[in-house]
Amino acid sequence: MEDLILHEDRRSGNCYKIRLTAALLGLPLERREYDIMKGETRTPEFLATVNANGRIPVLQVGRRFLPESNAACFFLGEGSPLIPADAFGRADMLRWMFFEQYNHEPNIATLRFWLAYIGEANLTEPQRAQLLPKRMAGQQALELMEQELKGRDWFVGQACTLADISLYAYTHVAEAAGFGLENFPGICAWLARIAALPGYVTMD
Amino acid sequence: MEDLILHEDRRSGNCYKIRLTAALLGLPLERREYDIMKGETRTPEFLATVNANGRIPVLQVGRRFLPESNAACFFLGEGSPLIPADAFGRADMLRWMFFEQYNHEPNIATLRFWLAYIGEANLTEPQRAQLLPKRMAGQQALELMEQELKGRDWFVGQACTLADISLYAYTHVAEAAGFGLENFPGICAWLARIAALPGYVTMD
Repeated sequence: MEDLILHEDRRSGNCYKIRLTAALLGLPLERREYDIMKGETRTPEFLATVNANGRIPVLQVGRRFLPESNAACFFLGEGSPLIPADAFGRADMLRWMFFEQYNHEPNIATLRFWLAYIGEANLTEPQRAQLLPKRMAGQQALELMEQELKGRDWFVGQACTLADISLYAYTHVAEAAGFGLENFPGICAWLARIAALPGYVTMD
Repeated sequence: MEDLILHEDRRSGNCYKIRLTAALLGLPLERREYDIMKGETRTPEFLATVNANGRIPVLQVGRRFLPESNAACFFLGEGSPLIPADAFGRADMLRWMFFEQYNHEPNIATLRFWLAYIGEANLTEPQRAQLLPKRMAGQQALELMEQELKGRDWFVGQACTLADISLYAYTHVAEAAGFGLENFPGICAWLARIAALPGYVTMD
């Protein structure tokens, strides 16, 4: 495989997904650090070369750049047991990864960023109006995950896939977003299952 | 392939993506209609059998159910020219599909739903506070697409892929969300290119 460079902010769960995937697969990954709080992913140079969307993570593969955390995980996971071998399983894995980016991350990750990094006192009015809707939507996402994990160990099939890694990233730090996990025993057991995988690395 | 049934609301661009993919591939698709305005995807029966997340589209494959529009398109497209044959191309296609669900759909599709179906006068306060942020974010998504389409016909490689179908669904009805496309010549030419594909079907 070509040289892999992860353009990241180490506090981001989206970046951590890629590092965790690479670690579980034993793939070496060079890391380039940016501070999103200082606008380092919005510089003209970053926009022109790394990602015109001004966001990290971006996985650099040789000279090509791949934004979007779940797409980068898919690239790394190709041909490995982290992607199911059957077509329905692959699509079902992607289903949870799209759920993660639509129903989970915009609520739980955004609340974590707002509360733990920006600070509630510094939020804009439109952000403040989103606190309760995002709290409710994040709670619903966790409830759906808990329901899905009843009687099963992993989101797709009988082993860990990218669906689990994707959902793990912000679920395991959901308390920093103000979500208690004490009423989600299925989620807690699943989090422990992932942390026990050979090659597992922490977020930092 | 097993029998395919699309659980849908025909006004939804997310549902249309799946119909367009199936049409371009010549795959027969039975259609089951739900009215999301009447809560028909939140009934106990729907939640228990079709999708615990209470959303359409859901692609039924035999007796299995696959939520999330882009995951359903991926399932239908497996092994076809709508998915690039090389690993980087596949991941790059998914990159645009995740962009669609994160940066495009929550802004352009949501504004279309709010303005064209719910009606601005009926919005809640938190929704009203989101009108301007979603307008700006939707505009940024279109600007990024326009920039990407400079000098190229398709989002990934040299032919139409699921990335184009995914982004087409709500871009081609963006005017119903209040986004004018007159300043996006690249997008307009690309929309026409998709509408000219053999097998193309309209939204309804």
